[in-house]
Order: sequence, then C-alpha cells, then structure tokens
Amino acid sequence: MENSEGAQAIAFSEEQEALVVNSWNVMKQHAADTALSFFLKIFEIAPSATQLFSFLRDADVSLDKNPKLKAHAMAVFTMACESAAQLRKTGKVAVRETTLKKLGATHMNSGVIDEHFEVVKFALLETIKDAVPEMWCPEMKDAWGQAYDHLAAAMKEEMKLLSASV
Amino acid sequence: MENSEGAQAIAFSEEQEALVVNSWNVMKQHAADTALSFFLKIFEIAPSATQLFSFLRDADVSLDKNPKLKAHAMAVFTMACESAAQLRKTGKVAVRETTLKKLGATHMNSGVIDEHFEVVKFALLETIKDAVPEMWCPEMKDAWGQAYDHLAAAMKEEMKLLSASV
Repeated sequence: MENSEGAQAIAFSEEQEALVVNSWNVMKQHAADTALSFFLKIFEIAPSATQLFSFLRDADVSLDKNPKLKAHAMAVFTMACESAAQLRKTGKVAVRETTLKKLGATHMNSGVIDEHFEVVKFALLETIKDAVPEMWCPEMKDAWGQAYDHLAAAMKEEMKLLSASV
Repeated sequence: MENSEGAQAIAFSEEQEALVVNSWNVMKQHAADTALSFFLKIFEIAPSATQLFSFLRDADVSLDKNPKLKAHAMAVFTMACESAAQLRKTGKVAVRETTLKKLGATHMNSGVIDEHFEVVKFALLETIKDAVPEMWCPEMKDAWGQAYDHLAAAMKEEMKLLSASV
C-alpha cells in the first residue's frame, strides 16, 4: 500500500482509530488533570527532564500550577489523537509543514534527543492506562503507541533535517 | 555529623535499613524473576537502552533468557541493598575502590550518562512496588531511593574522574 508521495503507508484500522478517539473523548473531560499527570509521570521517571523546558527552568510557580506545562501536555495528547485519525485516513502522519518546522526547531534547540521520545511514550501510555482503566486493553495500548510513534518519527525526521542544515 | 573522611555523613536510620533489607529478603526468594522484571521495565520505558549492553547487542537469546542480564540486575539490587546497610552504619556508601573503578570504567565506556541512572531508579522502585505490594509504603520507597541515589552518586563520581583523566 503506497500513499500519494510514494512512501509506504501505515495500516491503521478504523477500530484502532476508535480506540484512540473514544478514550480521548473520555479523558478530555478531565483534560487539565490528565495532562498534568502525564508530565508529572515523565518527571517522576526522569527528574532532570524539567531542565529541558525553558518555562519550567524560569518558573516561579510549582510544576502542578504551571499553565504552560499543562498546555504542552495537552498539545502532545491532541496531536497523538489527530495522528491516529490521519493514519487511518491517509496511512501517514502529516503535521502542517510550518507547525512541524517550528516544533522541530523548538525541540532541537531545547536539547531534546531521540531517547526522550521513548520516556514520553511510556508516560503517555501509563497515563492513559490510569485515566481510563475500564477501557484499557493491549489493543488500545498498541493503537496509541502507533499513533504516537508516527508523530514522534515526523518530529525526529524534522529535527534531523534541521540538525544537518546547521 | 561528619564521617572519618570529613565528608557530610548521611542520616539513614535503622528503620530505613530494615525497610530495604526486609523487602530484599522477601524478593530474593524469587531473585531471578524479580531481577528480570526490573530490567524488562527499564527496556519498556527506554527500548533503545538495550543498545548500551554489549551482552544484549551480541546476544543470540531473547532478553528474558539472557543470563548476563539477570546477573546485572541482581548486582544492582544487591549493591543498593548493601548501600542501605553502609549508609546506616557509616553514613556513606563505600564501594571497594577496585570494584568502583571497574564499574565506573565499564559504565563510562558503555555510553551510560547521568540521565540513565534516573530511569534505572524509577524501574527499580516500580519493580519493588510490584514485587512486595503488601510491604510497599512511602517510607520504603524513600529508603530504597536514598540507598540507590548514594550508590549511583558514587558511580557517577567515579565516571566523572575517569572522564576528566582521558
């Protein structure tokens, strides 16, 4: 299966999209708390990761009161959810080019490396498991995992291009 | 409180030592399984971390059958446990100098960096929580966490010295 750009398209089913979207619809009713749990989990695993975020380094409020942290966590959640929809429709994740360039540059300049995306993925999946335990199943883990992986791959690819051009 | 070398001694109580030692005595009855769970947790969080271990890169057996992986996990467990005993007795972690030099060199040459110790700590604490849920409590988490932190600090210090000397 190939998409219009000739790249190998990803097989992502309607069922997989539904696993992501339906759980997101439940979680987003408590979006702020869920987003906060997500990033607190990251910092529980890797306390030094707070240093990667300018808005945490310079902050005079505690982690759990930081509005930018919640906004960042929400952005990751919603983009992973949108990735699921795109994967199902087109077999690839297409972040708008201007958005991707900006995100790639921000993450590269912050000192984010490939390994950080692994910890974020683990924390994301743990957060979803804790937020919707009654819906959680291996297939849901796999669907969110795939959606996140393809989003992360698009970002990492952009970071690689930027890094090669400097 | 200062120890014989003039460094600030750590206050680590008999109760804290008991929290570590007693839980270890239960866990070590299933030592091989517990050790394996510990490192499988690390690789669940950070799959690329397998690449840091020469005995995993070159292995022709699966992770859960790798005897060197279990041995490594057991070594971390027992050293953290011994650290607790030392902290209580002497207020510091003293790894034998020849052992520490060897460990420092091995870890530095493997590409281990400070951030890896954070993920290992998280995985260690999660493994203990899952292995002895009936004993687990915040004080136990804190006691194991402190014992591990001081062991990791001794290793990181040795790695810093080695890195400065090359």
